[in-house]
Amino acid sequence: MNIDMIEAAAARARGHVRRTPLLGSPFLDDLAGRRILVKAECLQHTGSFKFRGAWSAISALQGAAGVIAFSSGNHAQGVALAARMHGLPSVIVMPSDAPALKIANTRAFGAEVVLYDRRTESREEIGERLAHDRDLTLIRPYDEPLVIAGQGTCGLEIAEQAAELGVTEADVLVCCGGGGFTAGMALALEGSRLRVRPAEPEGFDDTARSLKAGTRLHNGDAQSICDAIVTPAPGEITFPILQRLCGPGLVVSDEEALRAMALAFQRLKIVIEPGGAVALAAALFRDIEAETVIVTASGGNVDPAMFLRALDTL
Amino acid sequence: MNIDMIEAAAARARGHVRRTPLLGSPFLDDLAGRRILVKAECLQHTGSFKFRGAWSAISALQGAAGVIAFSSGNHAQGVALAARMHGLPSVIVMPSDAPALKIANTRAFGAEVVLYDRRTESREEIGERLAHDRDLTLIRPYDEPLVIAGQGTCGLEIAEQAAELGVTEADVLVCCGGGGFTAGMALALEGSRLRVRPAEPEGFDDTARSLKAGTRLHNGDAQSICDAIVTPAPGEITFPILQRLCGPGLVVSDEEALRAMALAFQRLKIVIEPGGAVALAAALFRDIEAETVIVTASGGNVDPAMFLRALDTL
Repeated sequence: MNIDMIEAAAARARGHVRRTPLLGSPFLDDLAGRRILVKAECLQHTGSFKFRGAWSAISALQGAAGVIAFSSGNHAQGVALAARMHGLPSVIVMPSDAPALKIANTRAFGAEVVLYDRRTESREEIGERLAHDRDLTLIRPYDEPLVIAGQGTCGLEIAEQAAELGVTEADVLVCCGGGGFTAGMALALEGSRLRVRPAEPEGFDDTARSLKAGTRLHNGDAQSICDAIVTPAPGEITFPILQRLCGPGLVVSDEEALRAMALAFQRLKIVIEPGGAVALAAALFRDIEAETVIVTASGGNVDPAMFLRALDTL
Repeated sequence: MNIDMIEAAAARARGHVRRTPLLGSPFLDDLAGRRILVKAECLQHTGSFKFRGAWSAISALQGAAGVIAFSSGNHAQGVALAARMHGLPSVIVMPSDAPALKIANTRAFGAEVVLYDRRTESREEIGERLAHDRDLTLIRPYDEPLVIAGQGTCGLEIAEQAAELGVTEADVLVCCGGGGFTAGMALALEGSRLRVRPAEPEGFDDTARSLKAGTRLHNGDAQSICDAIVTPAPGEITFPILQRLCGPGLVVSDEEALRAMALAFQRLKIVIEPGGAVALAAALFRDIEAETVIVTASGGNVDPAMFLRALDTL
């Protein structure tokens, strides 16, 4: 994979994927003691960067009958809307105990939702059977080159927007689950002086530990409110890209993610979810040498109760 | 005043004023039964469109020693930051009972805040004395052509962004206090098929009533949570522009503004204040013939307690 795939994805995305703004606030700069720029991907279609990867994959399909994805969250909504915008049917396999609102939203974006019981059924088996019977193409959430290329289009925008602000050297912190967004960003910014680093929640710091160890490590039993990025281990395709291009990982607590959400409300006027706030939290609360730090605010699909918990930290 | 002044303001603004995104959500379209596009001016520097007018006025000054403004809210912050970015001192005359956070923010943007007791002192007298003694230029909040021109730059952006989405005909609802924003937008969109209409809160519908009556009418004694736009009457300079160019005004309740704030949180991932939500509320809850409605989300400077009231409507 290289930047050519990302530029091709950007060409397919033009006019369909939103160019999200790069925000900042002197209050956040003062708090962190450095300049912070925030790429507001919560303002992307479906409320997260996941729409970029879904659009990239689906727009590259030739003659597909439809698409299928497994997801209880942001990838589901991204695939559902991108498929609808291409006039393709989509099937999303979701656990029956997924939040009712996320199921309703995925349906509202035009997907057929197939529920399964995660204690007794295998989503892979259900997915494979449906894909075979109905000739559907599987869209993987991160270990898929076309998806990685789509996420990378965000990096191309950041490079342009940062340059407009006079910034050509910075650490770029990316909220990291399976690593698709981080890998795409790293490829997009390869050769620039914008260095990508993954940011993760405590207990799900598999990428930070794996980068240190030089091999893919798994997470143990842990809990986190950062549901959007609690994946078991770095991806097979994404990890070698991260190893080659990324700086060391950063890890924040759930409490720090909530505090970053509250500051984004107060100072940037954007709504971000816990998993979309870890990069901002790392920029605010970790020691970073870079004079300028760019962060992704990756998603904003948070329910009011969790948002209230964040506002309580103000 | 005409579009030349707005284009000149846009040229001065380039690289300094944020180009805010034009957002939308299929959920809001379904709810309203028409397409809704939302110009997210809450993402502007200082959290409101007021920065545009302040930048326009201050960037046009020649050899000024400093600036002064009266405001307890968004205009104060806009003038303070725009002055600082020009290396000019600013004095903001604020009532001593203004919210502590707004006073603190205005100071943090570099302004000298002069407090006065609104029961016993006249802010005009204080302001005139300071302006005279220290050779400061007064920046009026709306009845000032350079400020109106600056607010109009938002309209130029809307015309471009709407055209990119294939929209060339729509009603454009603008959150309206003294009418500076509405007048600027109307001038910017004059000659297009984007028709500007003011949106106001109940009890402060002076502009809607004045447009109907053909003369400037005042508000009576009323209360509203929409503090950003509770002005006594349409401006002397702004009203004739509105009369010449605007469609009929729309009026919403405080409760509808809160509900619009909650839907903006849930569907657009932006934070808007009550006064910045009245145009979205009108698009959602009033009968409008236009197939597409563009609204300004004018500001996002809301405290957590008021935001909780909004989220409670979900």
